[in-house]
Amino acid sequence: MKRQNTNPISVAFGNKIRDLRKSRGLSQEAFAGIAELDRSYIGGVERGNRNISLINIQKIATALNLEIFELFKDIHE
Amino acid sequence: MKRQNTNPISVAFGNKIRDLRKSRGLSQEAFAGIAELDRSYIGGVERGNRNISLINIQKIATALNLEIFELFKDIHE
Repeated sequence: MKRQNTNPISVAFGNKIRDLRKSRGLSQEAFAGIAELDRSYIGGVERGNRNISLINIQKIATALNLEIFELFKDIHE
Repeated sequence: MKRQNTNPISVAFGNKIRDLRKSRGLSQEAFAGIAELDRSYIGGVERGNRNISLINIQKIATALNLEIFELFKDIHE
C-alpha cells in the first residue's frame, strides 16, 4: 500500500465517501467502476491517504448523483 | 505560464474563487499570502488551469473564512 501523510480534511472526506458508498450498498470495486477510478485509489481516498484533486472529487460526486457541495456539507476543518 | 487542460469544474471553481477574492478587496498577491500559496498558483486556479487538490481547497476556504461546502454551493457540473 502506498502510504502518504494523512491530513484532517482528507480523513474527514474519506470517511464521508465511505459512508455514502456503503449507504448505497456498493463495494469499493463497484463504486470505482462507476466513478471510473481505480479500486485501490478509492481505498486510499477512504483512508484519507490521498490528497484528492477537484476533477476526481467531481467524478465521485457524479458517481453518487450528488453535487460537490453535498459531499462537504457536514465536513468542517 | 504553465498551460494545462482546463476542465469545466476547474473553470467554475476558479471563477468563484476570483469573485470571492475580489469581493474582499484582495489582490492575488495578498490572497496568496493569506492562503500560504504562490501568487502564480492562485492565478492558475482562477483561470481554471489547475486541478487543485483538497488540501489546497481547504487552504483557500480557510483564507476566505468559509467552509469548503460554501465554495461549491452554486457550482454545478
